[in-house]
Amino acid sequence: MGGTMLALHGGAGTIPEGSITDEEAEAYHRGLAACLRAGHAVLARGGSALDAVTAAVMALEDDPLFNAGRGAVLTTDGRPEMDAAIMDGADRAAGAVAGILGPRNPVLAARTVMEKSPHVMLIGEGALRFCREHGLFFMPETYFLTDRRIAALDAELARRASGAADNRSDADRHGTVGAVARDARGNLAAATSTGGMTGKMPGRVGDTPVIGAGTFADNATCAVSATGHGEYFIRWAAAHDISARMAYRGETLEAAAQTVSEALAARGGSGGLIAVDAAGNVALPFNSGGMYRGTIGPDGVPRTGIWREALRPGDP
Amino acid sequence: MGGTMLALHGGAGTIPEGSITDEEAEAYHRGLAACLRAGHAVLARGGSALDAVTAAVMALEDDPLFNAGRGAVLTTDGRPEMDAAIMDGADRAAGAVAGILGPRNPVLAARTVMEKSPHVMLIGEGALRFCREHGLFFMPETYFLTDRRIAALDAELARRASGAADNRSDADRHGTVGAVARDARGNLAAATSTGGMTGKMPGRVGDTPVIGAGTFADNATCAVSATGHGEYFIRWAAAHDISARMAYRGETLEAAAQTVSEALAARGGSGGLIAVDAAGNVALPFNSGGMYRGTIGPDGVPRTGIWREALRPGDP
Repeated sequence: MGGTMLALHGGAGTIPEGSITDEEAEAYHRGLAACLRAGHAVLARGGSALDAVTAAVMALEDDPLFNAGRGAVLTTDGRPEMDAAIMDGADRAAGAVAGILGPRNPVLAARTVMEKSPHVMLIGEGALRFCREHGLFFMPETYFLTDRRIAALDAELARRASGAADNRSDADRHGTVGAVARDARGNLAAATSTGGMTGKMPGRVGDTPVIGAGTFADNATCAVSATGHGEYFIRWAAAHDISARMAYRGETLEAAAQTVSEALAARGGSGGLIAVDAAGNVALPFNSGGMYRGTIGPDGVPRTGIWREALRPGDP
Repeated sequence: MGGTMLALHGGAGTIPEGSITDEEAEAYHRGLAACLRAGHAVLARGGSALDAVTAAVMALEDDPLFNAGRGAVLTTDGRPEMDAAIMDGADRAAGAVAGILGPRNPVLAARTVMEKSPHVMLIGEGALRFCREHGLFFMPETYFLTDRRIAALDAELARRASGAADNRSDADRHGTVGAVARDARGNLAAATSTGGMTGKMPGRVGDTPVIGAGTFADNATCAVSATGHGEYFIRWAAAHDISARMAYRGETLEAAAQTVSEALAARGGSGGLIAVDAAGNVALPFNSGGMYRGTIGPDGVPRTGIWREALRPGDP
């Protein structure tokens, strides 16, 4: 037994303070708090870490503020292509999908792969066929599209055509959402979901659905969900590296997470990650200017942050 | 400077000794030796580990005996879907493709992703579009199909329809090819390529293109290419785990590779892997009955094996 803990992120990046209005910042705080409560509600009624991260990521996917599910960013073809993964620390069961457009909640698609197939990763049309066969709830393409993402793609394509420098915030370029949790029985779980990068090449897959890169969970060490420049997280096996440092070097969660975040920065890999260990410790390192993030412990008070300020408690 | 080394595999599994004739076994030995020579020729003329593993895996892909490129196994739809990855231990550059049918050599597609895109992983139609834009050599679907793989799919679908037990050799079910190398400058590289599993669900992706699972390379530790029941290799981040054990626990290549192979077996993950470290040491552990495998050192003598027998030297 022990205290429950859930942490989530909604993307990391430079997020220049002038790039979002105070009103928008408040909307992010409110959105993060609502998603934290969705995950906490599961844990508070004795639910599993797996169910809690599923609920939290579904809420993040449903919120068009974040780059996953509804509001996912668009490829150069003007369509969203979504990736998601989930992992259960109890037995290292895992599921992932990549390059899908249709299921309302890609994290549920990943979970269905984990639970209803002998496989870990399904992609593209084959993944969609599997989702249809298992009765996942689909939405038309228009559901996922938001004016904001269409404008972001238009601006990005215009920028490329003009040859101007890329001064978008990293969070706009490669946002991701994710959650990690520890339940009352000490089980850990992680889930991540994303639309990838605005103006990405169709078919590009980042670290989100790559188990060991953007998503990882093992009760013996930690649960991790990452966000950032995915190619670096893949090449450095970021999520598994944190687990390996804890297992093989005896590093604390905090030390391992911080080391990996700094090592990624030194190599040019901007981003951040959230992690929780079996004792319920949480680490939320990021090497970029900010990371939309939050935690919620047994008291049910969501604590949220965007830049390097201390997390701000909200209403329970 | 130092001695060159190249190792390769052509799949692991039970390979019951009665399941292949002496003639077939000789064909495997000859095929493995030819692919070893293709990789060694690059190293012997001072080429890079990256070029050597590319050449060796291309040769394995071109040989219909092995489950990659020509001769790749078929999905339930009766079509091959190929995955491949490559990684350069010098800078951890990596490239991967999944779910493709068209490029004659999927490993070249992976390498082109690594060298000509800012991305690590491209899948499906988007990957194919990228390959066309970069002038990769395509072959018609009939090039990849062999009577043996068509018969294997027919037999597997008939077995499933009849409800009979699955007594295929694991190597038939989930073969893979791969190579690891150390060049004269001490650089390491790994490459892996596969058609996946006979009768797999379309869209299923195994460990091959998952960096850290089926493919990994870092000059500081080792280069690894795996073959086996991919879902287990993904969940245990097998290739990166070997590297992490060396980096964080000071384990030797041999100990780390053997430990991971045995741990996978204990969890139900049959298969094997090949690995090389910066000193040119090689480990070829497998927890199944056999693994098509071989090594070639500075003497240019290919050494090949199928079951647990000592590797058999061939003609230089």
